[in-house]
Amino acid sequence: MITTHPFHLPETPETEDDDHLREECAIFGIYGTQDAAAHTALGLHALQHRGQEASGIVAFDGKRFNAHRGLGHVSEIFVSPNVMARLEGHAAIGHNRYATTGETLLRNVQPLFADFEFGGLAIGHNGNLTNALKLRRQLVKRGCLFQSTTDTEVIIHLIATSQGATVLDRLIDALRQVEGAYSLVALTGHGLIGVRDPNGVRPLVLGKLGDAHILASETCAFDIIGAEFVRDIEPGEIVVLNGDGVTSHRPFPPGRKRFCVFEYIYFARPDSNVEGQSVYEARKNIGMELARESHVDADVIVPVPDSGVPAAIGYAAESGLPFELGIIRNHYVGRTFIQPTDQIRHYDVKRKHNANRMQIEGKRVVLVDDSIVRGTTSKKIVEMVRNAGATEVHMRIASPPTTNACFYGVDTPQKEKLLAHNYDIEGMAKVIGVDSLAFISIDGLYRAMGLPARNDAMPQYCDACFTGDYPISLTDFDDGGDPAQLSLLTEQPAA
Amino acid sequence: MITTHPFHLPETPETEDDDHLREECAIFGIYGTQDAAAHTALGLHALQHRGQEASGIVAFDGKRFNAHRGLGHVSEIFVSPNVMARLEGHAAIGHNRYATTGETLLRNVQPLFADFEFGGLAIGHNGNLTNALKLRRQLVKRGCLFQSTTDTEVIIHLIATSQGATVLDRLIDALRQVEGAYSLVALTGHGLIGVRDPNGVRPLVLGKLGDAHILASETCAFDIIGAEFVRDIEPGEIVVLNGDGVTSHRPFPPGRKRFCVFEYIYFARPDSNVEGQSVYEARKNIGMELARESHVDADVIVPVPDSGVPAAIGYAAESGLPFELGIIRNHYVGRTFIQPTDQIRHYDVKRKHNANRMQIEGKRVVLVDDSIVRGTTSKKIVEMVRNAGATEVHMRIASPPTTNACFYGVDTPQKEKLLAHNYDIEGMAKVIGVDSLAFISIDGLYRAMGLPARNDAMPQYCDACFTGDYPISLTDFDDGGDPAQLSLLTEQPAA
Amino acid sequence: MITTHPFHLPETPETEDDDHLREECAIFGIYGTQDAAAHTALGLHALQHRGQEASGIVAFDGKRFNAHRGLGHVSEIFVSPNVMARLEGHAAIGHNRYATTGETLLRNVQPLFADFEFGGLAIGHNGNLTNALKLRRQLVKRGCLFQSTTDTEVIIHLIATSQGATVLDRLIDALRQVEGAYSLVALTGHGLIGVRDPNGVRPLVLGKLGDAHILASETCAFDIIGAEFVRDIEPGEIVVLNGDGVTSHRPFPPGRKRFCVFEYIYFARPDSNVEGQSVYEARKNIGMELARESHVDADVIVPVPDSGVPAAIGYAAESGLPFELGIIRNHYVGRTFIQPTDQIRHYDVKRKHNANRMQIEGKRVVLVDDSIVRGTTSKKIVEMVRNAGATEVHMRIASPPTTNACFYGVDTPQKEKLLAHNYDIEGMAKVIGVDSLAFISIDGLYRAMGLPARNDAMPQYCDACFTGDYPISLTDFDDGGDPAQLSLLTEQPAA
Amino acid sequence: MITTHPFHLPETPETEDDDHLREECAIFGIYGTQDAAAHTALGLHALQHRGQEASGIVAFDGKRFNAHRGLGHVSEIFVSPNVMARLEGHAAIGHNRYATTGETLLRNVQPLFADFEFGGLAIGHNGNLTNALKLRRQLVKRGCLFQSTTDTEVIIHLIATSQGATVLDRLIDALRQVEGAYSLVALTGHGLIGVRDPNGVRPLVLGKLGDAHILASETCAFDIIGAEFVRDIEPGEIVVLNGDGVTSHRPFPPGRKRFCVFEYIYFARPDSNVEGQSVYEARKNIGMELARESHVDADVIVPVPDSGVPAAIGYAAESGLPFELGIIRNHYVGRTFIQPTDQIRHYDVKRKHNANRMQIEGKRVVLVDDSIVRGTTSKKIVEMVRNAGATEVHMRIASPPTTNACFYGVDTPQKEKLLAHNYDIEGMAKVIGVDSLAFISIDGLYRAMGLPARNDAMPQYCDACFTGDYPISLTDFDDGGDPAQLSLLTEQPAA
Repeated sequence: MITTHPFHLPETPETEDDDHLREECAIFGIYGTQDAAAHTALGLHALQHRGQEASGIVAFDGKRFNAHRGLGHVSEIFVSPNVMARLEGHAAIGHNRYATTGETLLRNVQPLFADFEFGGLAIGHNGNLTNALKLRRQLVKRGCLFQSTTDTEVIIHLIATSQGATVLDRLIDALRQVEGAYSLVALTGHGLIGVRDPNGVRPLVLGKLGDAHILASETCAFDIIGAEFVRDIEPGEIVVLNGDGVTSHRPFPPGRKRFCVFEYIYFARPDSNVEGQSVYEARKNIGMELARESHVDADVIVPVPDSGVPAAIGYAAESGLPFELGIIRNHYVGRTFIQPTDQIRHYDVKRKHNANRMQIEGKRVVLVDDSIVRGTTSKKIVEMVRNAGATEVHMRIASPPTTNACFYGVDTPQKEKLLAHNYDIEGMAKVIGVDSLAFISIDGLYRAMGLPARNDAMPQYCDACFTGDYPISLTDFDDGGDPAQLSLLTEQPAA
Repeated sequence: MITTHPFHLPETPETEDDDHLREECAIFGIYGTQDAAAHTALGLHALQHRGQEASGIVAFDGKRFNAHRGLGHVSEIFVSPNVMARLEGHAAIGHNRYATTGETLLRNVQPLFADFEFGGLAIGHNGNLTNALKLRRQLVKRGCLFQSTTDTEVIIHLIATSQGATVLDRLIDALRQVEGAYSLVALTGHGLIGVRDPNGVRPLVLGKLGDAHILASETCAFDIIGAEFVRDIEPGEIVVLNGDGVTSHRPFPPGRKRFCVFEYIYFARPDSNVEGQSVYEARKNIGMELARESHVDADVIVPVPDSGVPAAIGYAAESGLPFELGIIRNHYVGRTFIQPTDQIRHYDVKRKHNANRMQIEGKRVVLVDDSIVRGTTSKKIVEMVRNAGATEVHMRIASPPTTNACFYGVDTPQKEKLLAHNYDIEGMAKVIGVDSLAFISIDGLYRAMGLPARNDAMPQYCDACFTGDYPISLTDFDDGGDPAQLSLLTEQPAA
Repeated sequence: MITTHPFHLPETPETEDDDHLREECAIFGIYGTQDAAAHTALGLHALQHRGQEASGIVAFDGKRFNAHRGLGHVSEIFVSPNVMARLEGHAAIGHNRYATTGETLLRNVQPLFADFEFGGLAIGHNGNLTNALKLRRQLVKRGCLFQSTTDTEVIIHLIATSQGATVLDRLIDALRQVEGAYSLVALTGHGLIGVRDPNGVRPLVLGKLGDAHILASETCAFDIIGAEFVRDIEPGEIVVLNGDGVTSHRPFPPGRKRFCVFEYIYFARPDSNVEGQSVYEARKNIGMELARESHVDADVIVPVPDSGVPAAIGYAAESGLPFELGIIRNHYVGRTFIQPTDQIRHYDVKRKHNANRMQIEGKRVVLVDDSIVRGTTSKKIVEMVRNAGATEVHMRIASPPTTNACFYGVDTPQKEKLLAHNYDIEGMAKVIGVDSLAFISIDGLYRAMGLPARNDAMPQYCDACFTGDYPISLTDFDDGGDPAQLSLLTEQPAA
Repeated sequence: MITTHPFHLPETPETEDDDHLREECAIFGIYGTQDAAAHTALGLHALQHRGQEASGIVAFDGKRFNAHRGLGHVSEIFVSPNVMARLEGHAAIGHNRYATTGETLLRNVQPLFADFEFGGLAIGHNGNLTNALKLRRQLVKRGCLFQSTTDTEVIIHLIATSQGATVLDRLIDALRQVEGAYSLVALTGHGLIGVRDPNGVRPLVLGKLGDAHILASETCAFDIIGAEFVRDIEPGEIVVLNGDGVTSHRPFPPGRKRFCVFEYIYFARPDSNVEGQSVYEARKNIGMELARESHVDADVIVPVPDSGVPAAIGYAAESGLPFELGIIRNHYVGRTFIQPTDQIRHYDVKRKHNANRMQIEGKRVVLVDDSIVRGTTSKKIVEMVRNAGATEVHMRIASPPTTNACFYGVDTPQKEKLLAHNYDIEGMAKVIGVDSLAFISIDGLYRAMGLPARNDAMPQYCDACFTGDYPISLTDFDDGGDPAQLSLLTEQPAA
């Protein structure tokens, strides 16, 4: 889900955070258990890394849809016994959302819900529709009123105006009109529906807990409730979970599978298994491949915590050099802090990371990180490591250079802010201040994934952020559509 | 505006409050001044008595609509300089809302806003549509999605699906389809629109402050900002306020004027002037007429504060008996309080009122109040006055017996809970515990308003709550429409 | 209780409010009932007018003292069933506090509590000690540490360092050392103690509810819980309420009774009975005396609501002129509001009051108010009445000119800000903008209280604010003590 | 600092958290810089691991002491620019506090402040006085009033009642009377004072940033502000930091240095350097020694994250077995969460940890953790690892068995709840469910610290929790003092 309209609330400062691309959403759904909402809250908690700004749950109790949505972390929103007690139902869906500053208005928080002629339907969505603006214009022309600025609402209006006989027919009718990358869960009076787009760009997995069936973005959401993994939902597949168990539908012409390779590099949790592969293993393999491709004489392998750790373990194992926690991360970092004066502003990165001087002083250090986006944090970390006495600093990156924006549900800065868009490797090394810099090659990445190489004619993954090779058309972007015009309303949050 | 769907949040106890009918909304709009939102906030503050649960303001700055809505009093919601600073614009509308327990969800708080093909439009509404359910069913059938459970949203969808060429055409098109009592303000990119229903049941007045034009429910909203009263908007009239001044339209066939007489009795502020008449004067006249109709030998005239005061002053003046504050009202009463044990529960009425013993002890007391709804508070007050030593207690009521529910924008208990529906005068006197009880007669009420008597063939006011003579058809009610089915969603407020 | 240390938090703007002197505290205590805390909360609610900034309750359950204190109104602080449930005990005391800006820190909120060698003791205090600074300096010198900046804490340290054998002995020992005006309640493991200072400047009354005994600042606190008034505590009397009933002690040499006459004029609630006299009657009598003293030809008597109403009723009755609500007060005024721009700043007074034009236009108006302090509000009200069309405006004040500060527990502006300190009657009339201005004479005031005249040799009341005749020595003031130096700590409230 | 009085607020459930001993406080102080409070906030943030419940800062601006204290994390309390702007001063001290449930009342949050005859003094304290109850009883007897239940306040009253001529004399006088383990910082009008107890049980280090001097519990607080480490404060040393630089005093007879060895095992941050030794290195060395002492044939070394990581790296390096993140920690764990029903309660540990199945399935796993307290978490983790398919699970603990409570500023469960108090190694292995269990030996621990062995006659560290050999007398404990009687007051926090 991408919210297409930034509200520009000026007093909340933009933060570069830790300079990563951001997965924008997590989804979860469960059918066939008491405490469906409590299970959903636990599942969303396990998926917190996919969206930290807002969460929502809608449960269905056989008669009514019971909802609660809020801004913040899952463990802040679903904390009260009263709140949980009212989310009655044997089926529920939930959603975590990441959103850039100002878009965190409650009316955009998912799951979205609508009352249709046929009854209620709630929907949660991970991904992004690339022709949402075009569809929205058509719908507004015929008298549809939009309440949110999310692309998810386009699907809701397409369902409302469909002539299909059943909810499922209407949903299929709607999805035939949309382009983009999406995994979605929908809760209706007749069951829980899960869909993965024809290219399977975003993940969706099926699990089981006793008699209940479950859908989730990642398998780690099954582990937390003791559920077992059944299988990945296939690209273009629609599953319906209800009293009859799981029924599979394939209304769309078979697409080419193009799963997002960045899920392995950074987005997914290391303890998840996606598309048949352990994320942790994949990262270690990338680290090993990286060590083979870009060896350097050094004394110690140091991960940039936490995301660089598995690749660094792989790198150290392959290179035979010792792995040490040469940078310590402070896990108490809050999201905001005192506004430092000029004198102390440059201490800011140290709130999160500190050099472990004894592991660094007098040594040739290889820093291993998962990716470089703007390069701002990398630069500060290198400076910190040098100040702690490193004699050489070499940076090794467990992904190819990020040169292009993602339009499939990932928050990327504008192309012009990507370091790799503006500099070659040597230039980047200079900006960051390292003695040497190397990225894994695109073929090296595919090798680490167990393939001989990238099949350029028919790539096995979506790797558009590295290659610019976009598997799904970018209609709105090509139209020059301006999402900032979506709504004329600027509403301040209620006190 | 009536919200037709009670959410039944069980933990907020129903309160009988001070046992009055409740006007459900106030509206305000201003065009042509800087600080339009600040003027609107002051206007809404002066109209706080018409709705205390929630308020909202939408301002238009020439490009965008800037909104803020919240639960609580005006002075709590529009208190922050930041909030006000962002409500930029030379035009604004605002709305106060009264709502019964559980309906105070933000999505129902007005003004409502929508993005249409032609641009944005915000709308605020005082009154109630009596065919809203029927229209809503038709709109849902054609694919319209409702976000709120308010009848106001029906008007918005009628505008969206209208084929009219201009906003005004579409609004007129929409209003031709609705039945009910309403005064409304709408803010568009082309100006501020005000409408009063063809019967003129609810009030709407036009004012002026320098070059700016203003619409408000009552004239007291002009006084607070130093504006001058120009005239009442006429029944069925549409006015457009923009850079060209005020334009008047009369697209509807002329209706029969049936202004709500209860506005004079209780709803309006005593310092307002409605339909050419001072509210305070009207109440005093009713008190005088009441004294003439139902004289009783007594020692002192005591108002039930605060609403009974003007009628009591009139009653005292006419009867020649002394007027005394025999009951003191505590103005610090909050909306909730400690949950008393059985032992102290019966002290509850004393949190608001206390007998002023020295004015009552040993005396024959005439209590003057504006109306009796359920009778619960009256009973407690009479008991309190007797405990303070009154030798006789006579109750005089400045309105006829309230025997029927209102469907035109006033919160009334079910007919079965109205004391006057269940008992004759003598029975009521017994329930309340007074030595004598009298209401003003229906003709006495019309005399106090300066008329010779009620014209039963063509009554000059809407007095349905006293007579059951409803001037506007009650389509939904006759259909047996069940508003509780409007939405399948129950959403808990965000923390 | 006076907090002697202003914390000067600059962002909370000083408010002139409605330009009155301010009683600074209310006290309440009850012994011998279940739900002692709930009764205390109701009593404090009835006494809310004596202090609106903070409240506290301490209950004793036979073993432990259970406390809750907070900032705001009683009905905000003691609202949660959880809070009330934990205030267990058969005895309790409570306190309301008024405080000027910035002093509302929780550590100053009463009742104060301390653990002594003999057990716990909580204390609440209405009044002000005039030698508190001197005593404090002596106590600090011997090693006592003060936590608050209240004079009440001086009493606590005097008790702690006393050699007395019993709590009562120690309290008497402490009170022998203090000078000032005070009524206090203290809760100990051995019972509830009430004290009134030897001059009886501040009120304290004894009541009864079944087997329970009660102490309160005013009788209206008895009415709310259905208790009956027994008697006033006498000047210099100490009462102990425990399982043996009420025991009276008189350890101090008999002083001259000098009850504060301003309690009748403004502080006390009109439905209270103090020192044997109805407050409402006293105010009406003052109004009648005022009418006799300063007659003027006019058309209508208009009170400045709400405090001017009883005197205006008396004035109207005596003068034979009609009493009308020519000014309407908006009871929804919150404590803060939008910060108006220059353009709309002058509307501010209208948030609270509005002229009732029809009662004023073309008339000669007599405005009746209880007192004039700075004169700021009076000026705005006169202007508003003139704008509403009054042909003449005459102001009549139900107290003599306020020319001196109070040091006995009342918040007064510095002498230099008192209008009557700077102008004679004619000058004041000019500032306020009236056609004529008159105050009741000092002897007229005493006559209204039922006395032949003021006994200048031995005045029957404390009237220092009108006469400068202070009945109790002003040690700290004469010492030039600077309360701003009391504590070196400035602590910001916890978020 | 130990708060000796549990308030037993029953609705906040006790949490076993992650079953560790808890360091109870962090202290920080800085003299001689603008923005002293901002530097202190950053320092406290770096020391957040030593206390997460509450924090406070007091700054001195040359005239006044400016304070702010609150409950929660440093980054929540010191977040507002307004708050920081008012903490003006060139010198400041700060304190983080850990507290068991219910004791988090603001009046116990440090730094404590008092106004003395000589001026103001603020004090913050890490450690625990073992004769505080005895001293408190003596002070109360002479009339001292305690506001908190902390032992820190005992020091304050000893200062207040001292006859010493200077602040320093009075502080030395006070400290001569106390027994226990403590490091403290005190802020006075004459400078910043730091003290370490004669045995040097708790850490305190001196640093420098430009002209400013700094005191902190650990060196990581220097790194965050770019300050450099100067030296450890020595046992029994008093340092005064003011305009003249740093002056050292040694008023106490030289004690035997007995630094807390658990600081190396768990309390201190791995990037800190304490008493001349890198904490991270010490942990790695313990892991290596442990591998030598208790080898086991296995396939993989898995740390219990995060505290077991450095020891696991050492263990893996020494044993030659691969180090893998076989357990993944979810860093989004909030402090509270939905109250699960019986059905889902056993998922609770999974909110924090999840097995990384691919690294565990079919393998013989060595789990490395820093310590075992109650054993509750260990048991759940072992079960989780077994469920993920481990064929064998061996637990290795980087400390000796914890058999005794700590009385020197560490939160320990009652002895009876310590697993090692109740079982021998074999019994513990059975309870936890492992195939084998081994702890490092006490001599192995000393070897890892670079010593030949423990000197039983004169041990080089305080290791009382492992050996029961307490270096400082336990007066209050031997007296059977009951801290629950310290205060008779139970106060609920303000809303």
